[in-house]
Amino acid sequence: MSINIPRGTQDILPGQVEKWQLIEEKARELCGKFQYKEIRTPIFEHTELFTRSVGDTTDIVQKEMYEFEDRGGRSLTLRPEGTAGVVRSFVEQKMFGYANQPVKLYYMGPMFRYERPQAGRFRQFVQFGVEALGSADPAIDAEVISLAYSLYQEMGLKKLKIVINSLGDKESRNAHREALIQHFQPRIGEFCSDCQNRLTTNPLRILDCKKDREHELMKTAPSILEFLNAQSQAYFEKVQQYLTALQIPFEVDSNLVRGLDYYNHTAFEIMSDADGFGAITTLCGGGRYNGLVEEVGGPETPGIGFGLSIERLIAALEAEKVELPLAEGIDIYLAGLGEAAQEYTVKLLYQLRNAGFSAERDYLNRKIKAQFKAADRLKAKYVAILGENELNENKINVKSLASGEQTEYSLDQFIEQFKASVE
Amino acid sequence: MSINIPRGTQDILPGQVEKWQLIEEKARELCGKFQYKEIRTPIFEHTELFTRSVGDTTDIVQKEMYEFEDRGGRSLTLRPEGTAGVVRSFVEQKMFGYANQPVKLYYMGPMFRYERPQAGRFRQFVQFGVEALGSADPAIDAEVISLAYSLYQEMGLKKLKIVINSLGDKESRNAHREALIQHFQPRIGEFCSDCQNRLTTNPLRILDCKKDREHELMKTAPSILEFLNAQSQAYFEKVQQYLTALQIPFEVDSNLVRGLDYYNHTAFEIMSDADGFGAITTLCGGGRYNGLVEEVGGPETPGIGFGLSIERLIAALEAEKVELPLAEGIDIYLAGLGEAAQEYTVKLLYQLRNAGFSAERDYLNRKIKAQFKAADRLKAKYVAILGENELNENKINVKSLASGEQTEYSLDQFIEQFKASVE
Repeated sequence: MSINIPRGTQDILPGQVEKWQLIEEKARELCGKFQYKEIRTPIFEHTELFTRSVGDTTDIVQKEMYEFEDRGGRSLTLRPEGTAGVVRSFVEQKMFGYANQPVKLYYMGPMFRYERPQAGRFRQFVQFGVEALGSADPAIDAEVISLAYSLYQEMGLKKLKIVINSLGDKESRNAHREALIQHFQPRIGEFCSDCQNRLTTNPLRILDCKKDREHELMKTAPSILEFLNAQSQAYFEKVQQYLTALQIPFEVDSNLVRGLDYYNHTAFEIMSDADGFGAITTLCGGGRYNGLVEEVGGPETPGIGFGLSIERLIAALEAEKVELPLAEGIDIYLAGLGEAAQEYTVKLLYQLRNAGFSAERDYLNRKIKAQFKAADRLKAKYVAILGENELNENKINVKSLASGEQTEYSLDQFIEQFKASVE
Repeated sequence: MSINIPRGTQDILPGQVEKWQLIEEKARELCGKFQYKEIRTPIFEHTELFTRSVGDTTDIVQKEMYEFEDRGGRSLTLRPEGTAGVVRSFVEQKMFGYANQPVKLYYMGPMFRYERPQAGRFRQFVQFGVEALGSADPAIDAEVISLAYSLYQEMGLKKLKIVINSLGDKESRNAHREALIQHFQPRIGEFCSDCQNRLTTNPLRILDCKKDREHELMKTAPSILEFLNAQSQAYFEKVQQYLTALQIPFEVDSNLVRGLDYYNHTAFEIMSDADGFGAITTLCGGGRYNGLVEEVGGPETPGIGFGLSIERLIAALEAEKVELPLAEGIDIYLAGLGEAAQEYTVKLLYQLRNAGFSAERDYLNRKIKAQFKAADRLKAKYVAILGENELNENKINVKSLASGEQTEYSLDQFIEQFKASVE
C-alpha cells in the first residue's frame, strides 16, 4: 500500500521547480538592490506569538493554525505568516540597537494554514516577504510597495492592480470602531455568529467576513478614511505622493482592511487583473504595523512589510501566459561502447563536471543507440563517443548535436581541449 | 513580556545568512553539473511514511519525531530527514515511468528532530541531499559520494575523511543478523533496555547505541564484511574501484552502520578531521537503499543518496578557518540635504535600483553628517550628495569613497551617466 502526500500540500517537481528557483533568485537580487537582508526564523514558534501578533480574533488564529505540543509539552504552531517570527527575532536579538536603522529584512519559505484546499490555495505555501523596522518615514512605505511591484514587473506581469488604504493611527481607528459598532449593532442579529462576536471584540473584522459579504450593511459601512485624524491623513497623502513620484499606479480602496490585526496606517494589496485568474486575485498584501514590536515585547518601533505567495505569482504568470527564460539542456553526454570504455567515462564525467560542464552518462548499461536517445532527451549540446578503439588509440570523438559536426580529441587532453574549443 | 524562540532552534541573521546563501548556491550549481534536479516535498508527511521507511525501531522514529494531529485528525510528522518524502513522491508521481532514468533529485530545506540541543545540534536544521533512483550501477554510488565530496572541496574544506562500508544485500544482512544475535545474546543483560529490545527487533541497531558504546562486546562484534555474499562483495569492490579512479580518498570501516533502517550495500560518511571540531564529526551520511521504494508502495527500484547538514558544514568551515568570498558593501548611498532634496532622492533611489545598483538613502530624517556615517557603515562605494542648490541647478555630486574623487553629473541624466561612468 502506498502513502499519499498530506491533503492540501504539493510536491514541486523538476519541470516546475525551475520557476520557483527563478522567482526566488530574482527576489534575492531585488532585495540586494533595495538593501533588504535575509533572515531565517524557525518553521514553528510558540503559539502565543501568533495569538498576540496576528490577533486572537482573526480567522488565522481561530481556525487555521497547525498547533501542536512538542514532546516537552510546549504549545508550538507552524508559522501561518512570516511577520510574527521576524518581529520576535527583532526583539529577541535586540536589533533595535543595531547601528544601521531601519533594519530591513526579507524572508522566503513555507507557511502553513489549515484552510479548505482549492485552486491556488494550499495548506503549505511559500511566502516571500520583507519587513522594514525602525522608520516611520512614508518614503519607506513607498519603497516596500515598489519592491513588491518591481518583482512582479521583472517577472513579466503586466496586468496588475495596486490598491492602498489607510487604517489610520490608534485615535482614528478607535473613532472608526465606534462608528462601525453603531452601524452594525441594530441589525447584528442578521449576521453570522462569528460576526456577532466580532461586534464587540473587533468590529473591523466584520468587513472581511466571507459569509456575510453580501449583506447590504456591508456596502454602507462607515469608511475608515472619514475618520482619519490630521496626522494620519497627512501621512497617507505623503505615501501617495511618493508612489506617484515613482510612477507606480494605484487606487485607493477604503474597504481594504487585511485579515490581520496588527496593521495601521498604510495597508496595500497587489492584485492580478488577468482574465480567468480565478476568484482569489490578491497576489501580495502588506501594510504598516507600528504597534507590533511593542506587542511582542520590544520597544516602541514603527514597521512595515508585505508577504506574497510564490504559488499565486506563478498562477498569475500562467494566466498572463508569460514565458520564463528557463535554461535547459546539458552541455555534454558521454556515450560509452563496451565495458572498459563505459568504466572510463565515470572518470571523464567527473572531470568534465569539475571543469564546469553539466554532463551525464548512462547508468543503466544501455546499448549505444539507447545512449544517443538519452542524450537527445537531455537536450545535450554535445555527445562524446568512446569505444574500445578510441580508448586504445587515446582519442575521443565529439559530435555537436546542433551542427552535426564531429571533432576528434586526444583522450588524455580531452578536458582542456574541449574546454578551449567551446569557450 | 517578550516571547522567545523555541528551544533547539535558531534565527539565522544577516551577517551569518550569507554563508547559507553561498553554500546553497554552490550546491545548486554542483547539482546542475551533476544533473540532479530539485524536488520540494512538504515539511510534514503522514507519520506512517517515516515509521515505514526510516524504520520503527530507530531512535528517530521512537524518540525524535515531531508528531501531531491536524484539525482533521490525521497523524502528521515534521520530516526528520529528506529521503522518505522524496521516495514517497517518486512513487506517488510515478517517476519510475519517466523516460530519463535514473531519476536524479536533490532537496534542500529544514528537517526536524526532537533531540537534546547541544553544540552543532539543533531541533530544526537544514539538510541538502540527493537521491538517485533507478540505477544499480556502482558508478552511481561513486557519483553520489563524489558530489558530496565536491561540495566540501569547493567550499574550501581540506580536512576531510570519507568512510565507506557495505551492508550487503538481504542474504548477507540476514547472515550477519544471526551472527549478531549469537554474539550479544549471552550477555544482553549487561546492555540497556533499548538494546535488549533491539536484539530481537533489529540487532544491527545495537552497534550504534549511544549508551553501550563502550561495552567490550561492541569491539568484538562480527563484522558485516565477513558475511557479504559474492555479489555484494563484487558490488562493493566496484564502488571502491570507481572512487579510486576519481582520486577520492576513502577508508573502509566495517562499523559504519548508519542510524536508519533502509540502507543496504554501500553506506558512507564524510567527516571533518579538523582540530577542535567537537564530538560530532560526521558532516554527511548516505547510502544505498534498494528496498525502500517497494516499502513505500512502489515497484522494485534501486536507490542511493546522501543527506548533509548545512549547520555542520558551516561549523567545519569555522573549525578550518576558511574565509568565504562574501560580497559586501553597497554601490551608492544617496545623501539629501533639505526637505525637497530628501524627497527627490526617493525617486532617484528607485531609478538607481531599477538600473541595477544596490542603493540606499536615509529613512530617519538624519542630518547630512549622520547620513555620511550611515554610508560608511554600509560600505558604500559612492555617495551622491543632493542639496537645494544642486536640485535648483539640475546637478548632483558623487564622491568615490575609495579615491575621494568627486564628479558632477546632470541630475536629469544622472542614472545613464553614472551607469556609463562606472561600467
